[in-house]
Amino acid sequence: MILNSKDIYNILINYNFFLFKKINVKGWVKHFRYNYFLNINDGSSLKDLQIIIDNKYFNNFFLKKINIGVSLEIIGILVLSKGKKQNIEIYANRIKIFGSFKMEYLQKTILQQKKHSLKKLREQSYLRFRTNIFSSIMRIRHHIAFSIHKFFYKKNFFYINTPIITTYDTEGAGDMFKVTTFNFKKIPINELGEINNTLDFFGDFTYLTVSGQLQGEAAASGLGKIYTFGPTFRAEKSNTFRHLSEFWMIEPEMAFYKLNHNMILAENLLKYVIKYVIKHCYDDLFFLEKKNINRLYSILNSSFQRISYTNAIKIIKSSKYKFFFPVKWGTDLQSEHEKFLSEHYFHNCPIIIYNYPLRIKPFYMRLNDDNQTVAAMDVIFPNIGEIIGGSQREERYNFLLKRMIELNLNIKSLWWYLNIRRFGSVPHSGFGLGFERLIQFITNINNIKDNIPFPRFQKNAFY
Amino acid sequence: MILNSKDIYNILINYNFFLFKKINVKGWVKHFRYNYFLNINDGSSLKDLQIIIDNKYFNNFFLKKINIGVSLEIIGILVLSKGKKQNIEIYANRIKIFGSFKMEYLQKTILQQKKHSLKKLREQSYLRFRTNIFSSIMRIRHHIAFSIHKFFYKKNFFYINTPIITTYDTEGAGDMFKVTTFNFKKIPINELGEINNTLDFFGDFTYLTVSGQLQGEAAASGLGKIYTFGPTFRAEKSNTFRHLSEFWMIEPEMAFYKLNHNMILAENLLKYVIKYVIKHCYDDLFFLEKKNINRLYSILNSSFQRISYTNAIKIIKSSKYKFFFPVKWGTDLQSEHEKFLSEHYFHNCPIIIYNYPLRIKPFYMRLNDDNQTVAAMDVIFPNIGEIIGGSQREERYNFLLKRMIELNLNIKSLWWYLNIRRFGSVPHSGFGLGFERLIQFITNINNIKDNIPFPRFQKNAFY
Repeated sequence: MILNSKDIYNILINYNFFLFKKINVKGWVKHFRYNYFLNINDGSSLKDLQIIIDNKYFNNFFLKKINIGVSLEIIGILVLSKGKKQNIEIYANRIKIFGSFKMEYLQKTILQQKKHSLKKLREQSYLRFRTNIFSSIMRIRHHIAFSIHKFFYKKNFFYINTPIITTYDTEGAGDMFKVTTFNFKKIPINELGEINNTLDFFGDFTYLTVSGQLQGEAAASGLGKIYTFGPTFRAEKSNTFRHLSEFWMIEPEMAFYKLNHNMILAENLLKYVIKYVIKHCYDDLFFLEKKNINRLYSILNSSFQRISYTNAIKIIKSSKYKFFFPVKWGTDLQSEHEKFLSEHYFHNCPIIIYNYPLRIKPFYMRLNDDNQTVAAMDVIFPNIGEIIGGSQREERYNFLLKRMIELNLNIKSLWWYLNIRRFGSVPHSGFGLGFERLIQFITNINNIKDNIPFPRFQKNAFY
Repeated sequence: MILNSKDIYNILINYNFFLFKKINVKGWVKHFRYNYFLNINDGSSLKDLQIIIDNKYFNNFFLKKINIGVSLEIIGILVLSKGKKQNIEIYANRIKIFGSFKMEYLQKTILQQKKHSLKKLREQSYLRFRTNIFSSIMRIRHHIAFSIHKFFYKKNFFYINTPIITTYDTEGAGDMFKVTTFNFKKIPINELGEINNTLDFFGDFTYLTVSGQLQGEAAASGLGKIYTFGPTFRAEKSNTFRHLSEFWMIEPEMAFYKLNHNMILAENLLKYVIKYVIKHCYDDLFFLEKKNINRLYSILNSSFQRISYTNAIKIIKSSKYKFFFPVKWGTDLQSEHEKFLSEHYFHNCPIIIYNYPLRIKPFYMRLNDDNQTVAAMDVIFPNIGEIIGGSQREERYNFLLKRMIELNLNIKSLWWYLNIRRFGSVPHSGFGLGFERLIQFITNINNIKDNIPFPRFQKNAFY
């Protein structure tokens, strides 16, 4: 009886079911020692499956072809292992090689599993899925994504896809990508010497979205509770450990939620995801960094400290620390201040800073009764800084219109957003969570570019 | 005791828990009859919640403000209803109005729930979430999305986000969107009179992806089984019921899968999703079109018929039907032929046509031993046509290289894709499923533009 092939993960988990049966497994060679112990992996988990190669069945000429990275199929009997490292192993009867692996220098480096080679791996991002470190990150990423969908699904939030191509150019369009079908050599100019955007594909200037929030608000104003989970874009030329030109965002938006509900949701979401990942990715987290798991537990066991912007400023001003950027009421907080608050003042506890000055926040946030602050909130994690930014949205037509005029915004392209406030407007709130920043926090892999399959940043859109 | 507000869905499902308790609900007015029966809905389900307005508590001046579309909060007691239409109702003690709804002509039309106004609704797509018909479609869309994630999660497929911005221009770039940060008035030209793409943001010409497959293959060549679920783009100027410029695709890619496994996976996925949606969205499906549910069941109860391209051609040629497009071996099948096969020849059964001629299929499909056909497969649904297209991929370096040279493809930008075949190459397969086409099939809402929140098509990127 030959059983069909299964993920190595399934075999390692359910080995009782396969014991002493003939099975068929496929994977890539991870180690091959003494022409006897062969470890293979198919990406389904961090753990390899050990294969025992008996000289009886295989000649040396054939075995010479088997080196690290070679892909193969093995038919053999699953037996209990005498080794201490694994419960089971497969006693091989037949081996079929699918693809050889030429051991060039570069690829040799790729398959080494050391952390300091992450930059090297990135330069070959089409191959790094083969390595322990990157496949671990990708499995964790996968579980984070699923846990986010599951969290919202259980809470009756509807998943909404907001558009990627938009006509809305935010405030100035400086850092947005343009989308066009124009021939760059023949850009149409009208009689006034201006670009004739009506001739472009969409009959208008179009850009890659920086956020699905505005459309999300429209959806929440009918469906009640929604969330987006899609790509967003920034054409910023900042090549840092925390920036990508293309990254995924999760943006829930809830009708009838006030700022307080928004804070509760944000805290619950983050804790749910972290708990889920510890449960489902323990091996991968442990492999990446043992200590890191404690850090994740400490988030679970903490209660996010809430502090108003005004109080935050007071605390910062009265502290003995020297900051590079001085603060006074009305200035934006820099990451050094956020770090100080979450890491020192609140002893490595996540914090939620709320009620920021009107002037340093976007137009859509709800004006508080003090006429000086808006119902904004930022969730700050120790080490990583801001992980969530959100607010209660301005649901009052007159207030929103006034603010848009003050800021000289393009009301013509946002008439529909204003109109939501004319037809059964409701108090509502939402926030944005950068997916890769969350992964970065959970994996503790320092560079955000190593937390996404194919990173896009300035001068880099290979693969 | 005041219980916190809950989704109306939760209240309708778990009403025993809330019975005779004081609760707080929020929503939009759907109907208000005799100044007594008030129906509200918060988007969480198709069913409204009935509120009883007792004159004792409310004066007529106040009640006049309540009309369709107004948003409000109600505090009242949940009681069993004497009516036949609902189990329960709320006896209102307090009402708070959040936002009025000015009954302009346009919005009146919007809130009418007739199918023939779908086009009208589309013109106000930021408001249509408020209507029964569109919120039903959106709830179904949500459940389809979740069921897809769940299906793959249970099967240990990893969710991968492939890049949206790519340098690969497929075959000719004719129907791709360009992504740029160039100032259209100052496109940089080099000494040869050519556009100096090295000065653009990514140092190269970049486009919006048409498919995540190629990167998905790279991921599968390490992680084993992966799927993508993300937006893809076509700059085609075809404004039909079946085309969008921006749509979402699901693209699984599996190492060690041959064409046969690929077919099984496609059939299982589609059946899983349909079963899931019938279970979780029965009310919404029933509301959209009662008959449609039978159609969905008939897919579940069918066994997808497999037929080779060569046999399909034979059957078509020997049929008595007159076709607009004549066929002979080597020509592509038109939708009239696919319709004939699935609807007439196989009596409204989904079919899988496989082994298409090499010449009509893309370069990456695996050449069969006959040297004339490739291991391609298309899943055809009755009424809707092709819903899935896939293949076993060419894993042999020399075969792939030869084909790319024959087709004069840009090997320089696809070196990494070729390279996957040099380092532990494995047989692998995958397919693409258009998310909106699947929704369109399940909802039976005729125009694909009504199956996505904010459709993008030629001359249309509003909202």
